[in-house]
Amino acid sequence: MDFLATCKRSISCLLLIPYLCAPSVMANDEMISPAAVSGSANSNVPTAGPARPKNIIIMIGDGMGPAYTTAYRYYNDNPETEEIEQTVFDRLLVGMSSTYPASVSGYVTDSAASATALSTGFKSYNGAISVDVEKRPLPTLMEKAKALGLATGVAVTSQVNHATPAAFLAHNESRNNYIDIAQAYINTDADVILGGGQQYFPPSLLTQFTDKGYQHITEFSQLETITTPKVLGLFADVQLPWAINDKQGHKLSKMTQKAIDLLSQNQQGFVLLVEGSLIDWAGHSNDIATAMGEMDEFAAAIEVVEQFVRESKDTLVVITADHNTGGLSVGANDKYEWNPVVLHNVNASPDDIATRAIADEQWQEVIASLIGFTPSDAEYTALENARMQGNEPLTIALRKLIDVRSNTGWTSGGHTAVDVQVFSAGPGARLFGGHQDNIDIANKVFSLLPESVTKP
Amino acid sequence: MDFLATCKRSISCLLLIPYLCAPSVMANDEMISPAAVSGSANSNVPTAGPARPKNIIIMIGDGMGPAYTTAYRYYNDNPETEEIEQTVFDRLLVGMSSTYPASVSGYVTDSAASATALSTGFKSYNGAISVDVEKRPLPTLMEKAKALGLATGVAVTSQVNHATPAAFLAHNESRNNYIDIAQAYINTDADVILGGGQQYFPPSLLTQFTDKGYQHITEFSQLETITTPKVLGLFADVQLPWAINDKQGHKLSKMTQKAIDLLSQNQQGFVLLVEGSLIDWAGHSNDIATAMGEMDEFAAAIEVVEQFVRESKDTLVVITADHNTGGLSVGANDKYEWNPVVLHNVNASPDDIATRAIADEQWQEVIASLIGFTPSDAEYTALENARMQGNEPLTIALRKLIDVRSNTGWTSGGHTAVDVQVFSAGPGARLFGGHQDNIDIANKVFSLLPESVTKP
Ligand SMILES: [Zn+2]
Ligand SMILES: [Zn+2]
Repeated sequence: MDFLATCKRSISCLLLIPYLCAPSVMANDEMISPAAVSGSANSNVPTAGPARPKNIIIMIGDGMGPAYTTAYRYYNDNPETEEIEQTVFDRLLVGMSSTYPASVSGYVTDSAASATALSTGFKSYNGAISVDVEKRPLPTLMEKAKALGLATGVAVTSQVNHATPAAFLAHNESRNNYIDIAQAYINTDADVILGGGQQYFPPSLLTQFTDKGYQHITEFSQLETITTPKVLGLFADVQLPWAINDKQGHKLSKMTQKAIDLLSQNQQGFVLLVEGSLIDWAGHSNDIATAMGEMDEFAAAIEVVEQFVRESKDTLVVITADHNTGGLSVGANDKYEWNPVVLHNVNASPDDIATRAIADEQWQEVIASLIGFTPSDAEYTALENARMQGNEPLTIALRKLIDVRSNTGWTSGGHTAVDVQVFSAGPGARLFGGHQDNIDIANKVFSLLPESVTKP
Repeated sequence: MDFLATCKRSISCLLLIPYLCAPSVMANDEMISPAAVSGSANSNVPTAGPARPKNIIIMIGDGMGPAYTTAYRYYNDNPETEEIEQTVFDRLLVGMSSTYPASVSGYVTDSAASATALSTGFKSYNGAISVDVEKRPLPTLMEKAKALGLATGVAVTSQVNHATPAAFLAHNESRNNYIDIAQAYINTDADVILGGGQQYFPPSLLTQFTDKGYQHITEFSQLETITTPKVLGLFADVQLPWAINDKQGHKLSKMTQKAIDLLSQNQQGFVLLVEGSLIDWAGHSNDIATAMGEMDEFAAAIEVVEQFVRESKDTLVVITADHNTGGLSVGANDKYEWNPVVLHNVNASPDDIATRAIADEQWQEVIASLIGFTPSDAEYTALENARMQGNEPLTIALRKLIDVRSNTGWTSGGHTAVDVQVFSAGPGARLFGGHQDNIDIANKVFSLLPESVTKP
C-alpha cells in the first residue's frame, strides 16, 4: 500500500483513514465483527484488500426505495419457518442517500437528474443527461475512468440508452433524445454495452460500432460466445422481458457476470454500471408481482458481484437507488398485514396474463392458473367487465386484485422523494456509511479512482 | 486539531494513524471525519468516551419511517437557498432496522410488539407488553438497569402508560389494559415518569406514588420546580397537546432536559426512554401538517440529547422508530413534486381548525387564516359541505386539502412494514451500523450495560 505517497495530499489521506483504521480487521469477512457478536445481520461483508479498489462496480436499482428492499425480504421469506431469512440487501447495507435534484426541479428527482448526480457529482434538472442546469456537459465517472486507462461497461435491463446508463456514458440536454444518445455511444469507447434498445441503433450506427471493433449481437444466447471486449449486445427492441415472465433467463445476472469477465481482462482495472432498470417500470405501473420479480433478479445480479468482490479482494461495489417509485407501501388500507405468498404464486406479469386471457375463451381458467389463486365470484365479475374494455383495463384490474389480496399500497404512478439506501462492500466501502447525498456518492467514488483523477 | 495541515506531511500523517484509529478518537466531534470531507452529512457525531457508556438514552419516534425523516428535511429546508439544510437525523444516521413482530402476527408490527422487541430483545405478538407469545413476562431494559443500580426514566408525549413506555416499564398481555399498566408502574421504582395520562391514575394510585416518595405534578409549569427524583408528572388527561398547537411549549424537549438533569444525579448512571409518541398519532390520521409539527419537536428533543452526549462523553443515544405509520409518501398522484412550504403556513392542527371553524360564522376567514392560504371557490364549497356534516368530516376535508396542496400521499390509517432508520452517537454507537433487526438493537444495548448483566 502506497500510503506515504497518497497521504501527501490531505484529502486523500483523510479519505483513507476509515480503511486504514479498521476494515482489514474490523470488517473482514473471516472475522467476527462486534455487530455480529451482538446479534447484527451486518457481517460477512468483505471489505479487506488494498486502500483503493482496482475495480469499481456501481449498481442501481432504479426506483428501489426502502419499501422495495423490505418487501423483497418478506417476499423472499419462507413463511413456514419462524426465522426471516436475510437478503443480500441486509448483508450489504451501509447507509442512506438523499436524491433531490437541482432546486429548479423541486424535491422529487427523475432518473436522469439522479443518474447525473451519481455519475458526475453535480445536481441538475430533471431530464438532464450529465449536463448542468446551463446544459453544459459535466465530466462523468466513465470518462474519468477511460482517461485513467480503465475499461468501462454498462449492463442494464432497459434499453442501453435509457436515462441511467445514458448519464454514465453520454451528455444530452434531454433524456428523451434517445437517437442522439445512442449515436453518442460511438464515442464513449465503452468496452461492454449490454441491454435492450435495438430500435435506437440503425444499421448505419451499427456499422460504425463494428468498424470500431465492436462485436454486435442481438440474441441472448450469443452472449456466452463472446470472450473478449468490445461488445454491443442489444437483446430486445426496447427493454428486456420482465423477469417474472422469464424465470429461467436470469439475464441481468448473466450480463453482469459476462461484463465482469470481459472487463477483468484490462490489467488496469474497470468501472462497470449495472442497473436493475425495470424495478422502476413495474413501480410506475403499480405492479407489485412484477416488481418483486425484478427485485429478485437484481438481487441475483448483486450476488454475482458480491461473489466477485469476495474473490477478487480489489473490487468495490456500491449499490443504491436513484429514487423511489410509486409510493409503494408494505401493508395498506388500515390492515396490519402484508401477504407476499400471494405474489409467489403469480406466474406471469399482469400485462401478460391480460393478453392471454383476452385471447382465450376459457379466460377464467387462464387467469386462475396464471394469477395463482381462484378469484371470487365478485372478483371475476370485476375482471369480466375489465376484459370487455380491453387489454389495459384488464391489466390494471389484475394488478389491483393482486394489491388487494397481498394488501399492497401505492400513492403514485411517478416518483417520491424518500431517501434511498446505500449498500457497499470491498475497499472503500466504509466511506458510504451513514447519511449522504447522491452527489456525495459520486465524489466518494471519484476519490477512490487511481491518483491522478482525485486532483481537481 | 488541525489534521488537514498535519496530514500534508506524510510522516506525521503516518504517525497519527494509531491515534486516529483509536476508537475514542475516530469519530470524535472535534475531528473532521472522512465523510465530512467527501461531502457527507454524517459528521460531528460525538462517539468519544469510554468503551461502555455510563448512561443510555433510547429515543423512539413512534411511526417515524424513512418518509418522515425525509419529509422533515424538506419541511425544514429554506426554499430560498440552493442548499438543503441538514437535520439532526442526517447527522446521526448509522443504520436501519426491520420491525416485524413474532410470526403469529405476520409482517406488520404494532407499537406494543415493537417496543417489546426494543425493550427485551424478544419478538412477541401485536399487543404484547413485554410478555412472550405464551404471555410470560420478559426481562426489560429498565429492569436490568435497576438491578445494576442505574436510575431509570421515561419522557413521552402520549399517556405515560401507552404501549411504548409500557413495554419498557411493565408487563401485560394487552396494551389496552391501561389501568393495570398504570398500577404496575408503582413497582417499577422508575425515577422519572413524565408525559400524559391523568385519567389512568386514580387518587388511590397517586397516594401510593406519593407514599413511595414521588413528587406528583400535573401542571407543566411545575416541572421546573422539581430538582430531585422521584417525579410522576402527568400533564394531560391523555396525550399532550399537538406541537403545532403549542409552538412555544417545546414540552418534549423540556421533559427530556429535566429527565436528564434528574437522572444524572445517580452516580451509577441511568437509562432513559424518550418517545415522540404523537408522530404516530398524526400518521394514523394521515395528517401531514401535524406530523411535521411532531417531527420538529422530536428533532428538538434529540438535539437536547445530542448536546448532552457531546458534553458528557459517557452517554450513548440510540434513536429509532418502532414502525412506519400511514404509508406516507413525499410526493404523490403522479406528480414529481412536494410542497412543504404549504405545511409551514399551517398555523393549527386540522382538528383544531375544524373546531374553531364550526364555532364561527366567519368560518371562511378562520380557515384561511389558520390553514395559511385562501382556498379556491371549489375548495370552499367542499369545505362547506364537510362543515355541515360536523367536526370530523371537516377535519378530514382540511387534511385532504393540505395533502392536495402539498402533494402528500398516504396508503393506510394503520402501520406498514418498511424498515426504519437507526441513529446513534456516543460510546458504542458504531454497534448500531448497517442492517439489523429490532431485537438486535435491544441485545446490543444489553451488551453495553455494565458487566454483570451481559453474562447470562
Ligand atoms: Zn421512474
Ligand atoms: Zn401506531
